[in-house]
Amino acid sequence: MKIGILGSGLMGGKLGVLFAQAGHEVIFSYSRRQSKLDDLARRAGQTAASGTPAEAARADVILLAVHWSRLDDVLSQAGSLVGKTVVTCCVPLDETDSKLVVGHTDSGAEQIARKLPGAKVAAAFQSTPSEVFAEVFDARQHPGKASCVYCSDDADAGRAAAELLTTIGFSPVNAGPLAIARYIEPFALLTAQLAYGTEDGPDWAYRFGKFNTL
Amino acid sequence: MKIGILGSGLMGGKLGVLFAQAGHEVIFSYSRRQSKLDDLARRAGQTAASGTPAEAARADVILLAVHWSRLDDVLSQAGSLVGKTVVTCCVPLDETDSKLVVGHTDSGAEQIARKLPGAKVAAAFQSTPSEVFAEVFDARQHPGKASCVYCSDDADAGRAAAELLTTIGFSPVNAGPLAIARYIEPFALLTAQLAYGTEDGPDWAYRFGKFNTL
Repeated sequence: MKIGILGSGLMGGKLGVLFAQAGHEVIFSYSRRQSKLDDLARRAGQTAASGTPAEAARADVILLAVHWSRLDDVLSQAGSLVGKTVVTCCVPLDETDSKLVVGHTDSGAEQIARKLPGAKVAAAFQSTPSEVFAEVFDARQHPGKASCVYCSDDADAGRAAAELLTTIGFSPVNAGPLAIARYIEPFALLTAQLAYGTEDGPDWAYRFGKFNTL
Repeated sequence: MKIGILGSGLMGGKLGVLFAQAGHEVIFSYSRRQSKLDDLARRAGQTAASGTPAEAARADVILLAVHWSRLDDVLSQAGSLVGKTVVTCCVPLDETDSKLVVGHTDSGAEQIARKLPGAKVAAAFQSTPSEVFAEVFDARQHPGKASCVYCSDDADAGRAAAELLTTIGFSPVNAGPLAIARYIEPFALLTAQLAYGTEDGPDWAYRFGKFNTL
């Protein structure tokens, strides 16, 4: 799979490197510093490169991984995403990264979907801290230890999200339609509180399922 | 511990029966039918009784477990709760039980705390389906399998919530101040979606913690 990463922060950077280590082609894009993108591509290995958001947007699947305040900027640089599959791990946070700016009757994921008419949008990865990705990836031959929820209104985008989650080593949990992001995004702030505000983190994770399978 | 249950639905009924089977004194209250309260007391055993909300409110800990639409009614019958420890498992749902009526900048738990000045309020139990309580209780000698988050602004109420969770067999997870209910209540709707809308339920549960402890 060819994966275009829009956003070079902790989420996009760590996930892109792991996708490439798993053998996918990865294009890193969108940083104030070209050197940052080049470093990521170097660390990720032979199947990775750096490029522009428009080049990343030509991939089979686009991972949207910017801070909420950069959303419109990166999407304007990416160009048309009609017909493209977009997996967003964005959380609609304020400038202090401590509060949601969207909630209750709407979600960041749904706002993204409205900004991208004709794109197939899924939400995934936001509910778990990036600090745990490396451990989950190292354990990926024994999947099932850590769950990660995703949601989508489009079956193709849902499948892409599930495949990316499985690539990292998560057990993907289909939470249903994109509107469920109204619960997943607050859940992401709960998990951030537990991962960063208690002694149980930051390599914090969760498992969901029937009680007798936990 | 003497536990007063305000509300005789699935949450209050099931938890009250298990608290009593664990040896606590339990008073069941608040039902349209006295026979329902008497049945619960009978099932719960020797340490349980039925009574009025005012009688239940004399307990050491009060479990608030009514539908959101009944909140003001049960609190008016309970009388003054100044100085009392109240653990709420309420979720601020609409009349169809499918949408939150409070969220984003407030939570049901905080609204309850504002209605009860001088009470010590914690939120617990709402994030997990009542269908799993019996299994968790049966496995309580081997704790740690299922987590349940709680939050509070008061240390005593937090301790009471943790003790009630431990009594059922959950690993209590302290999520911090009462305002974290703004994330826990949407999380409760996510868990309901997974418990009731997918094949993984309804005896569905979750585990939180460091990845290598899951």
